[in-house]
Amino acid sequence: MTDTNSPSPSRRSLLGWGGAGLALGAAAAGGAVAMARTEDATEPAGSAIAFHGAHQAGIATPVQDRLHFAAFDVTTDDREAFVRLLKDWTEAARRMTAGHAVGEGAYGGLAEAPPDDTGEALGLKPSRLTLTIGFGPSLFEKFGLTDRRPEALVDLPKFAGDNLDKNRSGGDLCIQACADDPQVAVHAVRNLARIGFGKVVIRWSQLGFGKTSSTTPEAQTPRNLMGFKDGTRNIAGTETDRLKKFVWVDEKDEPAWMAGGSYLVARRIRMHIETWDRTSLQEQEDIFGRDKGEGAPVGKAKERDEPFLKAMKPDAHVRLAHPDSNHGATILRRGYSFTDGTDGLGRLDAGLFFLAYQRDVRKGFIPIQRSLAADALNEYIQHVGSALFAVPPGVRDKDDWWGRTLFSKEA
Amino acid sequence: MTDTNSPSPSRRSLLGWGGAGLALGAAAAGGAVAMARTEDATEPAGSAIAFHGAHQAGIATPVQDRLHFAAFDVTTDDREAFVRLLKDWTEAARRMTAGHAVGEGAYGGLAEAPPDDTGEALGLKPSRLTLTIGFGPSLFEKFGLTDRRPEALVDLPKFAGDNLDKNRSGGDLCIQACADDPQVAVHAVRNLARIGFGKVVIRWSQLGFGKTSSTTPEAQTPRNLMGFKDGTRNIAGTETDRLKKFVWVDEKDEPAWMAGGSYLVARRIRMHIETWDRTSLQEQEDIFGRDKGEGAPVGKAKERDEPFLKAMKPDAHVRLAHPDSNHGATILRRGYSFTDGTDGLGRLDAGLFFLAYQRDVRKGFIPIQRSLAADALNEYIQHVGSALFAVPPGVRDKDDWWGRTLFSKEA
Ligand code: HEM
Ligand code: HEM
Repeated sequence: MTDTNSPSPSRRSLLGWGGAGLALGAAAAGGAVAMARTEDATEPAGSAIAFHGAHQAGIATPVQDRLHFAAFDVTTDDREAFVRLLKDWTEAARRMTAGHAVGEGAYGGLAEAPPDDTGEALGLKPSRLTLTIGFGPSLFEKFGLTDRRPEALVDLPKFAGDNLDKNRSGGDLCIQACADDPQVAVHAVRNLARIGFGKVVIRWSQLGFGKTSSTTPEAQTPRNLMGFKDGTRNIAGTETDRLKKFVWVDEKDEPAWMAGGSYLVARRIRMHIETWDRTSLQEQEDIFGRDKGEGAPVGKAKERDEPFLKAMKPDAHVRLAHPDSNHGATILRRGYSFTDGTDGLGRLDAGLFFLAYQRDVRKGFIPIQRSLAADALNEYIQHVGSALFAVPPGVRDKDDWWGRTLFSKEA
Repeated sequence: MTDTNSPSPSRRSLLGWGGAGLALGAAAAGGAVAMARTEDATEPAGSAIAFHGAHQAGIATPVQDRLHFAAFDVTTDDREAFVRLLKDWTEAARRMTAGHAVGEGAYGGLAEAPPDDTGEALGLKPSRLTLTIGFGPSLFEKFGLTDRRPEALVDLPKFAGDNLDKNRSGGDLCIQACADDPQVAVHAVRNLARIGFGKVVIRWSQLGFGKTSSTTPEAQTPRNLMGFKDGTRNIAGTETDRLKKFVWVDEKDEPAWMAGGSYLVARRIRMHIETWDRTSLQEQEDIFGRDKGEGAPVGKAKERDEPFLKAMKPDAHVRLAHPDSNHGATILRRGYSFTDGTDGLGRLDAGLFFLAYQRDVRKGFIPIQRSLAADALNEYIQHVGSALFAVPPGVRDKDDWWGRTLFSKEA
């Protein structure tokens, strides 16, 4: 595999769209020309997120506007073929997050062959694309990996009110694609699925059209589909200490191959928005324990004021979800609003695709969600999909690949 | 109904988010404060599209990035109640397109009452939101309107290859919401649906994540999910002559109430993208009659070069769709790419939500679609939803309302 950061003449980047005519000339002349989505991979103009690092991007990264999330099942039992796929995926992810097309591009290569890239992201910016991989519990049943399954990768218990659709739950692995442009996120998932043809198949996928949580406290807090600011008391991407304490798996934690990784819980939460919309402002604010306009906790004036839990109703969402009600349990939320058309009854199939990262699910999502059994919000929501993934550490450099610490013998 | 363009003290706009704390103070003090999404309705900062005009916005308007389209069925048989709804909708549309919340806003009014606005667009820009209404053939069966049904509002014939799902087809009326921010488009449809509670119900809806057609030739042409530039030879929003000739219903056309309006065909077109992605570049280019990189017609060098149809394969999409193959038939395309998760077979449910505006469907979509029966593209696509709407003329001023020329006795 060649270093994509130093483009060679036969795989060179185009200097933006001014050069498109030129490139066409070269392609017509028989040269294999890879198309770049951005000016130059080495100068990402602030809109490409670094792919390499100790942790995978897409977790502490400031939340992008749009999401395409896909859960895959593995259909091969050939471990080597699967490892090869992880390597190919890593290379494609490296290229796409830098704003490049996959392989030889959408019209490089031979005319007689299908293009390497599907092409719909040509001309679009990198758009802060991040691609984050996770491994589901069922993956460890395959390829003789049961002894490497983290203890923290528990099977989630059944929670009160769960109404899970198995067609929207589980998966041997997942790819979370976040970008400021949905076309870039959709393109990435599609091209990874395509590279995986014959080895993996998409089990379910979810598009998120609007972020509901921010990890950048200085930015305006986004609003969820209930109209409330969401993410106020989230872990910020800059809070190194809290990230270390609550999000990243530590060197001292077991198993060693997860060090620098995290655990991801995904829950598709349907909102009964028609009912919600008929609820009084007072009741809505009581349910969250915060006011709707400013987002201030009950009795306080400003969004960022410290919540005083006892001023809230006992069944207020914020009161029940707060670390003080859960022995300090703290998660990093990264959810997105979704709208998937209409159900059979003319109601919008809309809600929150909840994503939470944490160092240990047993000290993060599970206790909080148990506490939320008493949540007043439950009258207006239902959990209809659920999945859990071990998110391995970051890809360190151009020779590293997704999942190496799990699959490589040396690791 | 008061003039929302000159905010009164009790329904005043907020000066952006700097004023949010202030507003909360006022709200807490018992004042009913409507929240504005933008600085000031009278100074839309370039990002609000005028709602009033001879034609509805959202047709010749430069295509926005995102779409939420909803088809409704009317559930009331009370004509007056329906007319009242059209007036309420107009008022809400006027406010939302200007960047304001509906009515008293998301936390104005009484704490004991549900807020007038659902709130998730608070703090977002107008985002060039347009709301465009259309009336389906079935509406004319209601309220004794059969004699006012335009002849041009034919029932669409069955076309070769159609595989229509009636749950994604038809509708008594539609709202097309386009905006550069999907949350703004989703918010608008949801709030209109809410205002219509008890009178209309959503029959189906479609989210579009990426525009596939441009009506601004100077901008970069967007790419569809097949990776090709789409909209190259579209009617531009600035081509007054072609708009007059092919898009707007003329004063001389029948019926008079449609003058200044247009007809909209919506088709949900599923793409078999997995099959497409395995097709060679040569074949892909043959199918469209244009090359993939530049978008130039066969044998030509540049995207905007005049196509030479005879150089293309006889079954090339562009050759068959071109006006010269269809007695001059010309439409304005305004479609969006969609991805709605995965079907039962692990394939992305993705494609093109095709929207076309024209002065007369019998001289626009119908002949072109008939000609496309021979289209090589048909191996890779399937039409799975279909609807047709008469789109009435624009709302002229603050006293006018959607559908007045159809429903008002004076008209
Ligand atoms: C549709 C479902 C949900 C909605 C609409 C929702 C909404 C909110 C809102 C508006 C806040 C207050 C602002 C903030 O600090 O972010 C909040 C806080 C929070 N939520 Fe949720 N939430 C939902 C589900 C969940 C779930 C399933 C969990 C975890 C099991 C969760 C955990 C939290 C936590 C930990 C906080 C912060 C509490 C604090 O420290 O003050 N939420 N949520
Ligand atoms: C998934 C389905 C479709 C795809 C992917 C598609 C794609 C394209 C592309 C890439 C072009 C060439 C660039 C351009 O001028 O815009 C084009 C042209 C065109 N298409 Fe389609 N199209 C589809 C369906 C339709 C349908 C259903 C109609 C109308 C019945 C239609 C009508 C046209 C017209 C009128 C042109 C311009 C022809 C010319 O004047 O050169 N297309 N289409």
